[in-house]
Amino acid sequence: MTEKGILIVLSGPSGAGKGTICAALRKEMPNLVYSVSMTTRAPRVGEEEGVSYFFRTKEEFKELIAEDAFLEYAQVYDNYYGTPKSHVMKLLEEGKSVILEIDIQGAMQVKDRFSDAVFIYIVPPSLDILSNRLRDRGTDATDVINKRLSKASSELALAHRYDYIVVNDVLEDAVEKVASILRAETCKIKRNKEKIQDIYKNYTND
Amino acid sequence: MTEKGILIVLSGPSGAGKGTICAALRKEMPNLVYSVSMTTRAPRVGEEEGVSYFFRTKEEFKELIAEDAFLEYAQVYDNYYGTPKSHVMKLLEEGKSVILEIDIQGAMQVKDRFSDAVFIYIVPPSLDILSNRLRDRGTDATDVINKRLSKASSELALAHRYDYIVVNDVLEDAVEKVASILRAETCKIKRNKEKIQDIYKNYTND
Repeated sequence: MTEKGILIVLSGPSGAGKGTICAALRKEMPNLVYSVSMTTRAPRVGEEEGVSYFFRTKEEFKELIAEDAFLEYAQVYDNYYGTPKSHVMKLLEEGKSVILEIDIQGAMQVKDRFSDAVFIYIVPPSLDILSNRLRDRGTDATDVINKRLSKASSELALAHRYDYIVVNDVLEDAVEKVASILRAETCKIKRNKEKIQDIYKNYTND
Repeated sequence: MTEKGILIVLSGPSGAGKGTICAALRKEMPNLVYSVSMTTRAPRVGEEEGVSYFFRTKEEFKELIAEDAFLEYAQVYDNYYGTPKSHVMKLLEEGKSVILEIDIQGAMQVKDRFSDAVFIYIVPPSLDILSNRLRDRGTDATDVINKRLSKASSELALAHRYDYIVVNDVLEDAVEKVASILRAETCKIKRNKEKIQDIYKNYTND
């Protein structure tokens, strides 16, 4: 009997290390499926439809918004980005667990639509350390970094809407914690009602 | 800052393998504290006060029952067995996680008194397998085994009061699942309110 898969939402401030944790998790838990986002931006060289992104026109995307076809979506400058609901739901029905690596605003949208998902908040040990990491990364100008820090600080107020918090201090520890959370969630009573029935059935039919 | 420890209640039918899992866990997670029970039965050769059990007279035990000094207790034939509350509470306050390996009736008593504990239900893959295990163990007569099986079967109805279910099929897998549950529980948002405050404080005081 196939139990439904688990939808795992990994989010946290920019620079907390979500992407690095996901990459490491991909190796440790090869059965996890990573959700593919949909976007209206043009494919870059080497990007493949359905692997990197689902590429759609703005008209198509807006139509899907109107049909409530996204678990979450956002407009970033001129383009839309979103997580198509039907694709994720199909995987979950097949018993596959799906991981979404999205920002906090997206996570809150998923929370409103799909409260049964598991919400993990990845945070740096302190905002000072986040500040150093963003500076060391060298990809953002000082004012962008300051905006990111101020956003991270204000978003901490949403922490209580998550199920778990993982402090990304030592990467291997953080990955092990996320992996443990996923293993633990598969043991939750509410996700094993059919299994419990099976154990019981075996005996009473004896 | 010390977060409070977690009270972990491991229970399940006789023969499910609670004791074996606990013994393996003791090696994997040396920081866990195993609760010492109190009993009115006489110490056996080699048993040490405060290590094997806290040994008390029936009068002392009954007085403690009257004072609501137990997380759970039971009378088994002529003797009492119980988990002293104050001892466990002191350890939790010190930030130590405490594991109780008790039967299902005891677990339900703890649930009524201390709902913040983590309840893990250890079950065999099927009652048929449990039946074989109890027979192979060779310590119980057939009628005792039948009583145990019928008890296990009726107790399955209490599964929904637990947080997690761990099917003890392959021992190493079951131990890894219990260890994962404990690691995951330390990441629960509700157990990290102070840590979240700390991350926030660092920045706003900057």
